[in-house]
Amino acid sequence: MQPIDLLIEARWALPMDDVAVLEHAAVAIDGGRIVGVGAANALTGRFAPRERLVRSSHVLLPGLVNAHTHAAMSLFRHVPIRGPLMQWLNETIWPLERRCVNTQFVRSGTRLAMAEMLSAGITCFADMYFFPEEVARLARELHLRVVVGAPVVDARTPWAADADEHLDRAARLWDEYRGDPLILPCFAPHSPYAVRRETFVRLRRLIDQLDAPLMMHLHETQTEVRDSLAAHGARPLAWLGDEGLLRPGFSAVHMNWLTEDDIDLAARTGISVVHCPQSNQRLGSGICPVGALADAGVNVALGTDGAANVGALDLLAEARAACLLASLSTHDPQALAAIDALRMATLGGAQAIGLAREIGSLTAGKAADLIAVDLSAPACLPVGEPADALVFAAGRDAVTDVWVNGRAMVRERRLLAFDAPELAGIARDAPARFAPGAAA
Amino acid sequence: MQPIDLLIEARWALPMDDVAVLEHAAVAIDGGRIVGVGAANALTGRFAPRERLVRSSHVLLPGLVNAHTHAAMSLFRHVPIRGPLMQWLNETIWPLERRCVNTQFVRSGTRLAMAEMLSAGITCFADMYFFPEEVARLARELHLRVVVGAPVVDARTPWAADADEHLDRAARLWDEYRGDPLILPCFAPHSPYAVRRETFVRLRRLIDQLDAPLMMHLHETQTEVRDSLAAHGARPLAWLGDEGLLRPGFSAVHMNWLTEDDIDLAARTGISVVHCPQSNQRLGSGICPVGALADAGVNVALGTDGAANVGALDLLAEARAACLLASLSTHDPQALAAIDALRMATLGGAQAIGLAREIGSLTAGKAADLIAVDLSAPACLPVGEPADALVFAAGRDAVTDVWVNGRAMVRERRLLAFDAPELAGIARDAPARFAPGAAA
Repeated sequence: MQPIDLLIEARWALPMDDVAVLEHAAVAIDGGRIVGVGAANALTGRFAPRERLVRSSHVLLPGLVNAHTHAAMSLFRHVPIRGPLMQWLNETIWPLERRCVNTQFVRSGTRLAMAEMLSAGITCFADMYFFPEEVARLARELHLRVVVGAPVVDARTPWAADADEHLDRAARLWDEYRGDPLILPCFAPHSPYAVRRETFVRLRRLIDQLDAPLMMHLHETQTEVRDSLAAHGARPLAWLGDEGLLRPGFSAVHMNWLTEDDIDLAARTGISVVHCPQSNQRLGSGICPVGALADAGVNVALGTDGAANVGALDLLAEARAACLLASLSTHDPQALAAIDALRMATLGGAQAIGLAREIGSLTAGKAADLIAVDLSAPACLPVGEPADALVFAAGRDAVTDVWVNGRAMVRERRLLAFDAPELAGIARDAPARFAPGAAA
Repeated sequence: MQPIDLLIEARWALPMDDVAVLEHAAVAIDGGRIVGVGAANALTGRFAPRERLVRSSHVLLPGLVNAHTHAAMSLFRHVPIRGPLMQWLNETIWPLERRCVNTQFVRSGTRLAMAEMLSAGITCFADMYFFPEEVARLARELHLRVVVGAPVVDARTPWAADADEHLDRAARLWDEYRGDPLILPCFAPHSPYAVRRETFVRLRRLIDQLDAPLMMHLHETQTEVRDSLAAHGARPLAWLGDEGLLRPGFSAVHMNWLTEDDIDLAARTGISVVHCPQSNQRLGSGICPVGALADAGVNVALGTDGAANVGALDLLAEARAACLLASLSTHDPQALAAIDALRMATLGGAQAIGLAREIGSLTAGKAADLIAVDLSAPACLPVGEPADALVFAAGRDAVTDVWVNGRAMVRERRLLAFDAPELAGIARDAPARFAPGAAA
């Protein structure tokens, strides 16, 4: 009998690898890694765990990977949305950010977002925000897995004065965290419209040299595509392709307005697409054609986007929204199966951020990032396929246990390592301090 | 000081009448009715409550009105959806119903659905299913408010052999429950395609005579509209108008495919529309144009539809889906404000079922059907407008207290009057017994 740290038994497991569903399953964990996944009665005969947990009405699955967010913007959750994307950015968000965002803001807002995400079963998130070094420090301190996207834009931001300084600081972040077991730095140019060609050329040189991943908002609105055609005579994706930026490790976020050529280009270059269904609905931006992308072989991940535009950092809700939107837009209830939406929310996310060898499925050898979700509430019964129950019947409140790298972060719905009054304190005066149009 | 049963103080109240939001609010309740709504410090000076509850981080609002469901179908929650609406009905649902549905099924399934709905803040639901007399009995026993829609179709169903028997049994239900304080019977012809003109003519005579309300699936799919044009030379709504069925008290459920003439006819006849956004997405049916309907003065309510096609009986999720769909389909983030979606989910529902004088708002004189929702979780903070927080940040798990007619049904998240093991027992063997294609 092999001694291990932890054996978790559950009614079901969704490994997100070759096996669709395991019944009466168990996951064996040692030294922060998964060492066995299979039928409970097989694993109990192989392993001698120091701790044994039985989750008899639960489903185990890989920790959810939120492939796109702006965590600190949780402190803008109360800010009303006025106008479509560009108006909201220009008139509400960017002025607010210039006035309010500093290291303290980012630490507080990110801490609040981390608490929300962990409780909802999100064990890893890809962030794009100012002061990414603060996000990295916090992730190390609180033990979450995070992709810290260092923003790159031409304009002055709270973090840097110009393109030069953004690139320098991004490169420094890369140097500091590359190879870290929990923190993966990446370059996050905001969008094709916020970065000049000259800056993209320099960025390309940098990422070629460092072999670093990239994350960018892309094809979010029709306006963005039209403006690019007017300015460059090319659609944004094609323009970036001409600049040599498209490659595996490139996360294209949103991708609502795509032609067949765009989809073909995405497939040929091996980029991933991050679908943020609720954000794109709320801002009236459009619908990402996930079915066509998947058919073309493009990896699709799911993201929440920031709380300021979506309200909740809830990847299970995004999985449901993805299924509903796919059915609506194709008039086919089977357009996106629940299990495939959950795959986007786990393995698809891991692949998008280049961590598919490390996380994203319950596979022996991978890190023990996993969650247990209780399907015994009346609202979930009767359970047929656990994936259907998870996506269409359960909600994030059914997440009971969360582990990151084998460490318990949520236990029986209790969020560990966070202090509830402290979190409430963070948010208490936010509506007054971070009000659009308020005095500096 | 006026002695009363109960005074509830809360951080906010959304009365859904002339006042948008009350801060530091209170609701006074006596004899099952609301006797005062206002600022807490004003009400504490007026009333001497036998019980006083303080919900310091909560918002109070009217109980949610689920204006369309098939409660017992919760026992089909596990059944996979194959094909769009008509294929799913013909090949999966109707054969299953013929084989499985009886009084015991309806009692069990409805009990399960009631537990789910109460926990989610739904205090009243409009049901359309076989054996409505069982639903009425259960509602009386468990103290929920319900509109029991007696199905009317031409074909044999588990409840009745033909149109005659459906009409007879519906009329008997009407006689038994009219005037009941909690139970409102109504006539529920399934759809224009499941009822012959001859039956509609008889139905019309009946409801003219009884002044009874009507609920019907209408304009759900493009196919339905096309078939009606082919069969009757008129769109379904216009056809029913010619038959004299449209009137206040008529709930038209779904209404996804509407011309300007349809909307105009709806407005002129004073019917209500019940929007079921998630059901219509999941089945790929279409989008109800709630903005155009509201602009034309048509009352719009929200419904979940049944758990078999939507997964969850969660009206807060429907409110969010309604906002998101409205933004998506108009490319305008302000197309449907959260407070207006909540109005659909409360007063709009009450008006649709003809109970707006009794429920739907926190107004002195109305029945004390109300709920408290806690907005203090990290996932809700910071709170700006409580309506936004309710719809976009919170979920049904934030509902802490539910009262129907002044009686506590949920207290601090504990569902009273239901037994959890009993509910689990109801569902345990459902996947085996109620499997599509299983032996009779």
